[in-house]
Amino acid sequence: MKLSKSVWQTYKEVPAEAQIPSHQLMMRAGLIHKLGSGLYTYMPFAYRTVRKIEQVVREEMDKVGGQEILMNVVTPGELWQESGRWEKMGSLMLKFLDKADRDLCISPTNEEAVADVFRSSVKSYKQLPVNLYQINTKFRDEIRPRFGLMRAREFTMKDAYTFHMDYECLDREYEKIYQAYENIFTRLGLKFSVVEADAGAMGSKESKTHEFQVTAETGEDIIIFSDEAGYAANVEKADTKRVNLEFDKIGGELKDVDTPNMGTIEDVCNFLKKPEHHSIKSLVYSAITGEDEEIVLIQLLGDDELNELKLKNFLGCEEVVPTPENKLAKLGLPKGFIGAVDLPQPMRVIFDQAIDLDAFYVTGGMKPDLHKENFCPNKHVKEKDVVDLRLARKGDLTPDGKHVVDEKKGIEVGHIFQLGDKYTKAMDVKILDQNGKSMHPLMGCYGIGVTRVMAAAIEQNHDENGIIWPKEMAPYDLYFALIGKSDEIKETADGIYEELKAAGFDVLFDDRKAGPGFKFKDSDLLGLPIRVVLGERDFKEKGELEIVIRRTNEKLFVKKEELISKLKELYAQY
Amino acid sequence: MKLSKSVWQTYKEVPAEAQIPSHQLMMRAGLIHKLGSGLYTYMPFAYRTVRKIEQVVREEMDKVGGQEILMNVVTPGELWQESGRWEKMGSLMLKFLDKADRDLCISPTNEEAVADVFRSSVKSYKQLPVNLYQINTKFRDEIRPRFGLMRAREFTMKDAYTFHMDYECLDREYEKIYQAYENIFTRLGLKFSVVEADAGAMGSKESKTHEFQVTAETGEDIIIFSDEAGYAANVEKADTKRVNLEFDKIGGELKDVDTPNMGTIEDVCNFLKKPEHHSIKSLVYSAITGEDEEIVLIQLLGDDELNELKLKNFLGCEEVVPTPENKLAKLGLPKGFIGAVDLPQPMRVIFDQAIDLDAFYVTGGMKPDLHKENFCPNKHVKEKDVVDLRLARKGDLTPDGKHVVDEKKGIEVGHIFQLGDKYTKAMDVKILDQNGKSMHPLMGCYGIGVTRVMAAAIEQNHDENGIIWPKEMAPYDLYFALIGKSDEIKETADGIYEELKAAGFDVLFDDRKAGPGFKFKDSDLLGLPIRVVLGERDFKEKGELEIVIRRTNEKLFVKKEELISKLKELYAQY
Repeated sequence: MKLSKSVWQTYKEVPAEAQIPSHQLMMRAGLIHKLGSGLYTYMPFAYRTVRKIEQVVREEMDKVGGQEILMNVVTPGELWQESGRWEKMGSLMLKFLDKADRDLCISPTNEEAVADVFRSSVKSYKQLPVNLYQINTKFRDEIRPRFGLMRAREFTMKDAYTFHMDYECLDREYEKIYQAYENIFTRLGLKFSVVEADAGAMGSKESKTHEFQVTAETGEDIIIFSDEAGYAANVEKADTKRVNLEFDKIGGELKDVDTPNMGTIEDVCNFLKKPEHHSIKSLVYSAITGEDEEIVLIQLLGDDELNELKLKNFLGCEEVVPTPENKLAKLGLPKGFIGAVDLPQPMRVIFDQAIDLDAFYVTGGMKPDLHKENFCPNKHVKEKDVVDLRLARKGDLTPDGKHVVDEKKGIEVGHIFQLGDKYTKAMDVKILDQNGKSMHPLMGCYGIGVTRVMAAAIEQNHDENGIIWPKEMAPYDLYFALIGKSDEIKETADGIYEELKAAGFDVLFDDRKAGPGFKFKDSDLLGLPIRVVLGERDFKEKGELEIVIRRTNEKLFVKKEELISKLKELYAQY
Repeated sequence: MKLSKSVWQTYKEVPAEAQIPSHQLMMRAGLIHKLGSGLYTYMPFAYRTVRKIEQVVREEMDKVGGQEILMNVVTPGELWQESGRWEKMGSLMLKFLDKADRDLCISPTNEEAVADVFRSSVKSYKQLPVNLYQINTKFRDEIRPRFGLMRAREFTMKDAYTFHMDYECLDREYEKIYQAYENIFTRLGLKFSVVEADAGAMGSKESKTHEFQVTAETGEDIIIFSDEAGYAANVEKADTKRVNLEFDKIGGELKDVDTPNMGTIEDVCNFLKKPEHHSIKSLVYSAITGEDEEIVLIQLLGDDELNELKLKNFLGCEEVVPTPENKLAKLGLPKGFIGAVDLPQPMRVIFDQAIDLDAFYVTGGMKPDLHKENFCPNKHVKEKDVVDLRLARKGDLTPDGKHVVDEKKGIEVGHIFQLGDKYTKAMDVKILDQNGKSMHPLMGCYGIGVTRVMAAAIEQNHDENGIIWPKEMAPYDLYFALIGKSDEIKETADGIYEELKAAGFDVLFDDRKAGPGFKFKDSDLLGLPIRVVLGERDFKEKGELEIVIRRTNEKLFVKKEELISKLKELYAQY
């Protein structure tokens, strides 16, 4: 592609709302155009990248027996009503009525649609396993879309769905797709972690589920891992063990201690000269399901944090949120000084399992500016639940207690789930088994955020000058810049451009009327793997062209005759 | 692809709503799955065809300088408000509010979006012409979607947009894309006509616009054409000349004639023994713009029909509809007996230009069961408009009067328009011209209904047994059927399957446990260009395989050694 013929505009400034590198760089490099809130148009270079990613995904999915279909962007509400998710999906699903007053939505995910496709096409166990996938537009109606493509409202996803007679078959296909995902992200040149995840609302508790996380400092997810142990889990799912478990087993009588204006664990423990884990942190949460709300009191060691997902899973409710302050006041619970003794009314109390229930702790005194010492859960709280509630963190031990874990940040680009028979049961999808009996097949679902992969790749691969594309997804392989004005050098450039293309390279030819500074800046910003510069002076004097490797900024000069072979070598190494 | 591993189900029965061959055959062949009203999922084979069509479109668009982008399926309402089309688009555009109460729609077309992309990326005349295109999902909220993919609500379209400094440049690019479209439909193996069309609401009256019509008996469009004259136009646009212009120039005094129960032209002319074109047909129409409604009286020769589009263009209103009967009664206009004399109230009267205004006609008598003879427009109607209103038909003459036209039916699969500066003016999109002055660039837009092309291809190419795919868009090139059960023949079949693939063919291998009748029926229904049959008996006895050409049903036997070369030859000829 000749740049003189292409619609490409780079920008010096980016809107203030662009806070992360991928958003900033894609705006600066003119790769995306914001059409509206959370709505981005992919400009020609970005769309080349999208299609390259799609192609890798497609090839690897096909290799494991996937069959590509195209389901609908707009899905009838009745399918969601059949599965029971019409109400449950929450407000991220954009719902509306058509002209005939039928419920419709823009699909954020397609379990219902694919189950409907399946039940009309597959009747017998002999046809299983089935692996259907699509690459299609999705929509999530985020109220505050942000981070560019990372949390756009409209985005492209590959979603695959498998169907099985039994868990053995589901496990086998799951494993194949797990492997396909590893191949995909490896081919795309990304550093990634596969982590255990929480199945959440998607499947049953026992179902396997893994996330594929591109590691990047700007990631929103925290990965708890130990390379030695081969352990990695999303912090929400991680069930690591905490260290620092020496508690006060001597204690004494429960007693009040004045703590004026000391509303934090840190203040109180400093004042009392105790380690923070000799105190109990009390959190009040509202567990919400539909119209129902239950208030629960959470007890954690002073230096631990709550893993809300674990709480939600334990309670089996739809949502957990910290009870708002004005409600606390109404309930007679003094924020900053809450504890599990002297509760103003009966309330479910849930202890994190890391707490030694026979040890003694500092805890809230249930009056402003008051704490209590020598609070002993087993002595002072009669009815209680004890479960794993704490958030894993760096320094914990792996679940087997053998290795210390570390943490890093990641961007979720893929997620695979075993769904079991949740959807086939709800929608009464049946097939005949070996004995001619009808049964509900098991399902798996497997997503890749195609456009998110592009953004994640940039988060992981950039420097102060711009993007550094992994070569499999770079819009072009080479940035070929002509620096010179004579007709002669232009002709030479045209010839080299044709040779490069003939050699199999995707070439972006910067034939614009502009100086080297301008061109090299654009080149660095766009981040193609290799820049080739035909400089009139160098070429006339020495017959040489300059090659610059984007990732390392390494520069070398080659004779024209050696250009192609050298580029092939360098490109293979990139 | 082995059929034993694929999700494919054919059907004997189709739903009653499937009325046209493409809809029936795609349902029977299990190519599409109806997810909801006007919402179809493309099953694996159909999606292969969609992607093949897309690839041809992409290649030809790229050849004429098109740059592929991906705009949004969901577009912000504010862009449509800016262009003034938010209200005008009518109810086919699906509009809704997002969670933050912002107007959104699912794009039926993207002039506004592309103009927004353009104004942020292109600043100078030097960058023109620009040709941006996308292949994306579109949605039209038809109240009664029908004919399967032909009038589906969700569909895939290629829409391209060009930008220009002047009409010379617009004409040049328009011509290139016209040529690209001819290449596309030729490569896709379709018989098609390029016809003059009406620009309608899209551009100005002078702007060029052409439709690409796949000819098929089931087409909804009528094409008026003369191959000798190189003339073809959509009947709505055709400005042919009528023949049969000998009128009654003698006449006499205007007089009443009783015509009891004769409410049709035919009845009256039979009774009076006059040719139908010696009578005037009176039609009452409501011309609607917003809340405004004007009633007009149309005068046509008795054997002519009204071209509503010509009327609408002449009046410049938003819509024209026949005035409903109850309203006619209120206005004192007796249906079946209306004429332009003795109007109960002042009313605009519009004569078709084919009427000789000095001749004498039978016309309605303005009372039930009454007509008038010797009605002479120039004598009896003072104020009148005279314009071209009649619908062209077979037997007319080309506009130059030299050739007789015929008519045929077509399916519109492509439409190209010169938009002029309509959108760039409305949205104040500007660029700098050669003199540094800002101006509104001209636009062109160019659509292809990708999924409709698939349906149109079937309308044009099928027989009683099923689809007959043009080879460029067939899901696979070959249907390779194994008829035999021994392990030996299965092994041979596997070997041949691999050889066929290695030879570059897309092969669908019917390795299912089923008999020849079942397999051949499915094969005919699916309609791949060539069927290869490995029959155990024939192969053992004579070492031969059978080849069947789908389009001609021609059969031949070849030795295994000659299979590949014979297939290559036959496929090249297909």
